[in-house]
Amino acid sequence: MVDKNIKISIVGVTGYSGLELLRLLYNHPNAEVISIHNTQQTHTDISEQFPHLKKMYNLTTMPFDSVYIMQHADIVFFATSSGVSKDLASEFIEAKFPVIDLSGDFRLPASLYKKWYKKEPASDQLLQQAHYSLADFYNNNATYIANPGCYATATLLALAPLAQHQVLDKDNIIIDAKSGLSGAGKSLTSTSHFVNVSDNFSMYKANQHQHIPEITQQLQKWQPDIEHIQFTTSLLPINRGIFISAYVKINDAVQANQIDKLYKKTYANTQFVRIMSQNQLPNIKQVIGTNFTDIGITYNPDTRYLTIVSVLDNMIKGAAGQAIQNMNHFFGLEESTGLHLLAQYA
Amino acid sequence: MVDKNIKISIVGVTGYSGLELLRLLYNHPNAEVISIHNTQQTHTDISEQFPHLKKMYNLTTMPFDSVYIMQHADIVFFATSSGVSKDLASEFIEAKFPVIDLSGDFRLPASLYKKWYKKEPASDQLLQQAHYSLADFYNNNATYIANPGCYATATLLALAPLAQHQVLDKDNIIIDAKSGLSGAGKSLTSTSHFVNVSDNFSMYKANQHQHIPEITQQLQKWQPDIEHIQFTTSLLPINRGIFISAYVKINDAVQANQIDKLYKKTYANTQFVRIMSQNQLPNIKQVIGTNFTDIGITYNPDTRYLTIVSVLDNMIKGAAGQAIQNMNHFFGLEESTGLHLLAQYA
Amino acid sequence: MVDKNIKISIVGVTGYSGLELLRLLYNHPNAEVISIHNTQQTHTDISEQFPHLKKMYNLTTMPFDSVYIMQHADIVFFATSSGVSKDLASEFIEAKFPVIDLSGDFRLPASLYKKWYKKEPASDQLLQQAHYSLADFYNNNATYIANPGCYATATLLALAPLAQHQVLDKDNIIIDAKSGLSGAGKSLTSTSHFVNVSDNFSMYKANQHQHIPEITQQLQKWQPDIEHIQFTTSLLPINRGIFISAYVKINDAVQANQIDKLYKKTYANTQFVRIMSQNQLPNIKQVIGTNFTDIGITYNPDTRYLTIVSVLDNMIKGAAGQAIQNMNHFFGLEESTGLHLLAQYA
Amino acid sequence: MVDKNIKISIVGVTGYSGLELLRLLYNHPNAEVISIHNTQQTHTDISEQFPHLKKMYNLTTMPFDSVYIMQHADIVFFATSSGVSKDLASEFIEAKFPVIDLSGDFRLPASLYKKWYKKEPASDQLLQQAHYSLADFYNNNATYIANPGCYATATLLALAPLAQHQVLDKDNIIIDAKSGLSGAGKSLTSTSHFVNVSDNFSMYKANQHQHIPEITQQLQKWQPDIEHIQFTTSLLPINRGIFISAYVKINDAVQANQIDKLYKKTYANTQFVRIMSQNQLPNIKQVIGTNFTDIGITYNPDTRYLTIVSVLDNMIKGAAGQAIQNMNHFFGLEESTGLHLLAQYA
Repeated sequence: MVDKNIKISIVGVTGYSGLELLRLLYNHPNAEVISIHNTQQTHTDISEQFPHLKKMYNLTTMPFDSVYIMQHADIVFFATSSGVSKDLASEFIEAKFPVIDLSGDFRLPASLYKKWYKKEPASDQLLQQAHYSLADFYNNNATYIANPGCYATATLLALAPLAQHQVLDKDNIIIDAKSGLSGAGKSLTSTSHFVNVSDNFSMYKANQHQHIPEITQQLQKWQPDIEHIQFTTSLLPINRGIFISAYVKINDAVQANQIDKLYKKTYANTQFVRIMSQNQLPNIKQVIGTNFTDIGITYNPDTRYLTIVSVLDNMIKGAAGQAIQNMNHFFGLEESTGLHLLAQYA
Repeated sequence: MVDKNIKISIVGVTGYSGLELLRLLYNHPNAEVISIHNTQQTHTDISEQFPHLKKMYNLTTMPFDSVYIMQHADIVFFATSSGVSKDLASEFIEAKFPVIDLSGDFRLPASLYKKWYKKEPASDQLLQQAHYSLADFYNNNATYIANPGCYATATLLALAPLAQHQVLDKDNIIIDAKSGLSGAGKSLTSTSHFVNVSDNFSMYKANQHQHIPEITQQLQKWQPDIEHIQFTTSLLPINRGIFISAYVKINDAVQANQIDKLYKKTYANTQFVRIMSQNQLPNIKQVIGTNFTDIGITYNPDTRYLTIVSVLDNMIKGAAGQAIQNMNHFFGLEESTGLHLLAQYA
Repeated sequence: MVDKNIKISIVGVTGYSGLELLRLLYNHPNAEVISIHNTQQTHTDISEQFPHLKKMYNLTTMPFDSVYIMQHADIVFFATSSGVSKDLASEFIEAKFPVIDLSGDFRLPASLYKKWYKKEPASDQLLQQAHYSLADFYNNNATYIANPGCYATATLLALAPLAQHQVLDKDNIIIDAKSGLSGAGKSLTSTSHFVNVSDNFSMYKANQHQHIPEITQQLQKWQPDIEHIQFTTSLLPINRGIFISAYVKINDAVQANQIDKLYKKTYANTQFVRIMSQNQLPNIKQVIGTNFTDIGITYNPDTRYLTIVSVLDNMIKGAAGQAIQNMNHFFGLEESTGLHLLAQYA
Repeated sequence: MVDKNIKISIVGVTGYSGLELLRLLYNHPNAEVISIHNTQQTHTDISEQFPHLKKMYNLTTMPFDSVYIMQHADIVFFATSSGVSKDLASEFIEAKFPVIDLSGDFRLPASLYKKWYKKEPASDQLLQQAHYSLADFYNNNATYIANPGCYATATLLALAPLAQHQVLDKDNIIIDAKSGLSGAGKSLTSTSHFVNVSDNFSMYKANQHQHIPEITQQLQKWQPDIEHIQFTTSLLPINRGIFISAYVKINDAVQANQIDKLYKKTYANTQFVRIMSQNQLPNIKQVIGTNFTDIGITYNPDTRYLTIVSVLDNMIKGAAGQAIQNMNHFFGLEESTGLHLLAQYA
């Protein structure tokens, strides 16, 4: 077996994203998890706590310890809730030690973070060290990588070809986004109780989801006149998956029948974005368990609205998988290393 | 017990809507099902075929027989697939015998029916006898009632207060509609196979659903300048329920903070439309098992889009329940008779 | 409308059973809920807290107040968790005021309650006033009715015809019981989190469920030599429903081909137990939303084991519906009053 | 990358098991799928037909062609329905070309096959060439491998430690087995329609499942006095997973407190059977997506019944995964090659 030369520490290992990192990294040929940390718990055999890890991992959770991590690991993943890395990551930033942060703490400027997350932000000085890295448009080798949010990834990949060509009608960008429950994490609330989710569908945080500014600021980089998006989020009675229905108008610079070509060209050299055949739309299931984002487009000549559907697995492409893709870039590995994942058909 | 004086025949009793009519009519104090008909099957004990009806119904299916029905019943319900009543209902129309048609055969003018249903329409002469009856806006006592479609009911009730005041921006009426699987009926297709539906979410018939012209023509009656709606439909991994997310802009004739009032006023005298408290949005589960349509509204000052959510039970308000509501109107009964239905909380 | 002459108070109205009582009693022609009580909360508009009750109930929760209840109501339902009624119900018992208790507090002798519920029991004096009332075998008009548990009802109805004829092989009574999640109530635990329930199935409380002594003591009344049952419980990823698979051997006093007849005879005069046609087995869905228990039987000549399947809706027959059936008996009403409920087919 | 030296053909590639083989073999370091065959379809681009395979497989289905397969491949997998390989596989048997057969056609002697499958069996001569290979008890290097059924694998692994020590009370072996829907395959029947499966649970083929003789004959090899098992199967409203609840009595040769030790010893050297910690029972989700069988045991001193729970993924350990494990054995590879699969936690 190949030498697993990249040593990884994970902070927040008992959350959904942390456990998904453990799962995916098990089969990464060049990387190995050498320590797992939990902000609350200490010294628990991870496979006793999570029997699905039996015979696979022989690791014990440790309290967070930045010195230990910097001495033993090559990179640290923060798979923590928002509000944790902004405090704990500063030592790594100061030491220029590589961090991939799956939380939202370093994705926004201080003022926007404060407004949308309703928490105190990290300092401007720290925030400036972080680079927001949409892995399929990799363009930087920053040491502190802010891994994009799940909804943001699905939405940005759906709109990128249009925004990059600046053909979006900025006043009518409507996103109806849906997510499975794992996106909300492990916390026990009435909205995660099985009886309230099963056989149900509900909209939440309409116009208030914290991924809105994350999406808008990236769109603006591509098409500067975009100020706002109409963005709502709803909860699907499934465990995994994001489904974005985007309704947009485009300006005269591009014709409807050119759109397919535009999408195919934009993603021609990517490995993890698949454009569906003409007028076919993807469903959630075809990407679950994978690092793919699948995109389909259909145009309505009556309303002149374009419908763009994009789907991804929120735990993989929307979290742990994209983080590994970013890690692969950082270490100069082929970006799909450890991510050759296919969806279960049945 | 009250004399159950209204005698009812049901054609198409073994489909989902027919079985739901049987279920609801069991407890109707003034009506009784006296014959059940099936276009294919004959002479089957309905409670042997459907054990959930044991000890409740003692009826045998009969072949379709218009003479029998007109001799013994006071009204006939067609709970048939599209394409059936346009042929079978003509005798009733000619005899001016009361019909409530749950199918789409008499909802559209001939040309639109042909275009969207891809079937030969009924004759113009017959079509003119039918009245499209959105039960919560009851305004007619036609003998042939075309009962509205499930998506159409949910969408029209969501938009009626705005369209009736003609304040919709006609170019940006975007409906992202979702339905549970019972809306697709009993037919066995790969899209109804459990493995393909469970843990999945998919868009289908984008811009092509046959309820689009049904919605548009009714909106036009309220606000004549409306020509088109942007309308997509998606499949939820649940049995019942429709969830409409409508994104619309409104013109200056009405202010955003007046919208709540407008909705409450429009539906003040209805029994089956409930407007949620300000900024609260309904979920599907709170209407399942009931004849209610629940509506919530939220306004985004940044995008100037109004989000309107409406939910209903597609088998009740979207089919059998509204049909009974229409029947109650026709016979001069209180419209909620037999429809005092509450949702299961757990 | 008929005079709703029976006045009802409900204690514990915001739990699943309390809300189900509200739902079912809405359509009871002879009864009316006049006050609702919650042990924690006070003075909340019930339809603000639970929007599915809008336009149906105009009631405000009150703190528990036994004096108020005895002055204004004719009967009180305890829809509380175990450990509540044993303390709160004593005043009613002393005043001989009618109580129907949906909790387990008065179903067992003190010693068994202590062992299985791990709580202090009510006093022997109070316990003796209570009558365990399996409604389909009504035989008493006690003022304090201990309403049976959901698993217990399904199991006892499945085994009653055999136990009453004392033909069960006492050493091989094996019950593999499954329940939907509503049986576990509203409390937020990791075992009720959607992500842990969906796509999953798990056994819990094997040999330790508190309904075991409840079942055993009733079986003993019918067949005194029965000492123990092998009873496990598993969690289905659905909201409602109980499915009992019972595997039993029978002694030579009865032949396998007589079993069907025995079951049909035992339940010939009941309204809410339906025996399936020979070799047909019921599924959960055909009883959801109803007060029925459906039972099917199949015999294996190779193993000499009889398989008995019984299904019911844990919230109705297993809780609120049976409680109303018991109330109907108590007040001399026809036992199905208010309980003419049919299952949704789709 | 390692040379993928084993060349594989798959017959029946468009069924669930065939697609799962494609999925798993993608990441097998020593094997490669070189041709895919379908008994009906011909010359279809597999990733056009199944979009989840886009960017992963560039293969076109071919009609079945035994000559082509024997010329180009090293081994052929039959992932066909029962009744196919008994006809198509004879040429391979005669040529002593390696076959792994996932169907039931070569698991039983002719008379039992005829009785339980209700089809004409293969000839005795052919049947004798096949070896039933429970991969975790690998003991043969036959060229024709009859891969065990899903229920059979779960049941046999649950009972093996007891049967091998001949301590089972032969008259009381009761198996209550449950499966997700993928076990029933892709065929469209009313029992696979989403509306009939969702929110439901039903027993089917009680005492008649074709895995009964498969289990019994293997148990007999271990403990010859076993004649019959009491075995029922039920359908869970989930896609994947088998859950076996076995209730057995053991004779005096072994004490209840020795059982844990017995299980741990039996499986000490296996890679894919995990015994839970004392009194812990596994749930389905912890093995989905993996080749593991997890087993938990609990003893009831009152009834003297032992409850054994075993869980596995019916598409992997119950089909494609075990087939690959058998292939690894056949070619002398480490048995877990390509099968390092972890369950998704969320």
